[in-house]
Amino acid sequence: MAFISFRRPDGTASYGRIDGDRVIDCGAVADTPADLKAAIAAGVLDTLDAGPSLGLAEVLLLPVIPHPSKILCVGHNYESHRQETGRAKVDHPSIFTRFADTLIADGQPIIRPRASTNLDFEGELAIVIGRGGRAIAEADALDHIAGYACFNDASIRDWQWHTTQFAPGKNFPGTGAFGPQLVTPDEAGDLSDVRVTTRLNGEIVQDQPIRDMIFPLAKIIAYISAFTPLSPGDVIATGTPGGVGAKRTPPLWMKAGDRVEVAIGPIGTLSNTIIDEDQLG
Amino acid sequence: MAFISFRRPDGTASYGRIDGDRVIDCGAVADTPADLKAAIAAGVLDTLDAGPSLGLAEVLLLPVIPHPSKILCVGHNYESHRQETGRAKVDHPSIFTRFADTLIADGQPIIRPRASTNLDFEGELAIVIGRGGRAIAEADALDHIAGYACFNDASIRDWQWHTTQFAPGKNFPGTGAFGPQLVTPDEAGDLSDVRVTTRLNGEIVQDQPIRDMIFPLAKIIAYISAFTPLSPGDVIATGTPGGVGAKRTPPLWMKAGDRVEVAIGPIGTLSNTIIDEDQLG
Repeated sequence: MAFISFRRPDGTASYGRIDGDRVIDCGAVADTPADLKAAIAAGVLDTLDAGPSLGLAEVLLLPVIPHPSKILCVGHNYESHRQETGRAKVDHPSIFTRFADTLIADGQPIIRPRASTNLDFEGELAIVIGRGGRAIAEADALDHIAGYACFNDASIRDWQWHTTQFAPGKNFPGTGAFGPQLVTPDEAGDLSDVRVTTRLNGEIVQDQPIRDMIFPLAKIIAYISAFTPLSPGDVIATGTPGGVGAKRTPPLWMKAGDRVEVAIGPIGTLSNTIIDEDQLG
Repeated sequence: MAFISFRRPDGTASYGRIDGDRVIDCGAVADTPADLKAAIAAGVLDTLDAGPSLGLAEVLLLPVIPHPSKILCVGHNYESHRQETGRAKVDHPSIFTRFADTLIADGQPIIRPRASTNLDFEGELAIVIGRGGRAIAEADALDHIAGYACFNDASIRDWQWHTTQFAPGKNFPGTGAFGPQLVTPDEAGDLSDVRVTTRLNGEIVQDQPIRDMIFPLAKIIAYISAFTPLSPGDVIATGTPGGVGAKRTPPLWMKAGDRVEVAIGPIGTLSNTIIDEDQLG
C-alpha cells in the first residue's frame, strides 16, 4: 500500500491511500485519525480502505509526513560518498538533524536562498517510523518501520562547512524534499538491489543500490533510538550515494529552473524544480 | 520581571510571574494565553500581573519553555573552551540542535544513561526568543529576545565524538537542564560583566564573564536566523566556558548523587542532581 498527505481542491489538508491514479480520502471518514502521522500512531494504516475517491491530479501533495516530531539524517552512509568527501571511516552512523519547517512536497520548489549559490542535491531513501521506542534492538528494528519515501536532503554546502557542524547548511527553508508517497514495507519488498538514482535535468548524477549502505537500516534505527526516543511519523533520511555536486570539478550547483529527481524503484520518484528565494511571492 | 513554567499542586501545568517567594498564576486567568510560549508570542508578558498567588515552594518547576519549537546550541563560543577542545578558529558560530524532549527543569535530575559514563557539564546562558523572524539584522537582534535563563547543555562525550556530528551526545533524554526562570532583558540589565559559573558538588569548575563570548548574542541571533526562521519561545544555548570535565586530566565525569549548579548573576541559579538511568522509576 502507498499513502500520501495532500490538500484537497478546497485547500483543506487530508491524507489517503493511493488507488491507481486516484486517492482514497481516508481523512474524510468520521472517526479516522486526523492526519497520516496520527494514523500511523494509531496503527490503523492496514485498515484504511474507505473514503471518497479523488483524482491524483486534483490534489496538491504535502510532504509525506507534514510535521514530523523528529527528522534525523545520516551522513556519509555510502562508501562512494565517504570517499569523495574525504571523511574518516567511523564505527557509528554520523547523525545530524533537520527542522520540520525545511520540508517540501513532491512538485514543490526547492529554494535556493539569497545567502548562497552552493545548492547541492542528495538523493536518499527515507524511513518513516511506525511503532516508536527507545533502545530498539537491531533485530527488531525493521518492525518499527511504517514505510519508505524518497528524500532530497538538499544542502547549502558553504553553510554546511562554516564549522564542523552541518546544521546551518541543512536547515534552510524549502530544502528538504520528501515524497511523493509513503510505501509500506510489504509493498516495497526487498530493497537491497533497488537503486537510489538522482537525476539533474535528466542526467543521472547519483545511482547506487541500497545494499551499498555502510550502516544498514536496522543498525541506523538501533543507533538513533539508543540516544533519542523515536515516535510514529519520525523521519530518518538514510544517507546519500556518491556523486554530489560539491565534489565535482568544477562543482555542479543547482540553480533556478533546474529539475531534480530522486527515483527509488518501488518507492517512487520525487521531483522538484529549483527557484531562487527572490522568486518567492 | 521573571517568569516560570510550573505544575500546580494539583498537577496541572501553568505559568506565572515571580513575586518574591511567590508566583502569580497568570495561566489561571480567563482569556490569557495557554502557556509561557503562547504568552511570549502574544506579546503580553509586560501586562501579566493578575492571578492567584502560589508559594514557590508549592509548585513544581517545568523547563522555562516546556516545548520550544527549536533549540539551537552554540559550540566553542568562549576562547578558553575553544582552546581546550583544540578546535580551529572559525568565522561563524558552530551550531547544533537539541530535541525538546531532552529538556528538564531546575530541580529535576540529569540522567546519566546506561549507554555511557561520560556525562559532562556545560553551563550556559540561554536566550529565549520573543519576536520571531528570518534574516534578523544584527543591529535589531537584541530586540528579539524575550529573556534569559540558565542552561546546562549536559553532554555524553563519547557519543558526541562518535563522528564529527554532535547530535547523538547532545540528545539523550534528561540532559538539557533549563531554568529556573525567564528573566526579561530590562530585569537582567547589562550582562557583559556577569559570569557564567558552574559548580560541581560546590566546587567551581567553570567561571567566565559573558563578555568573553567569541560571537556575541546579536551575532548569534543574526547568524541563526539567516538559515532558519526563529519563533517565539525558541531557545538558543549560547555556548559554554572552558573547564569542561572531558578536558581535565583525569576527566571529571558527573555521576549519580552529584549536584551541578549553573549560576548567572541576575538570571538565577539552575541546580540539578545526577541520577543513573537505572534509578528511574
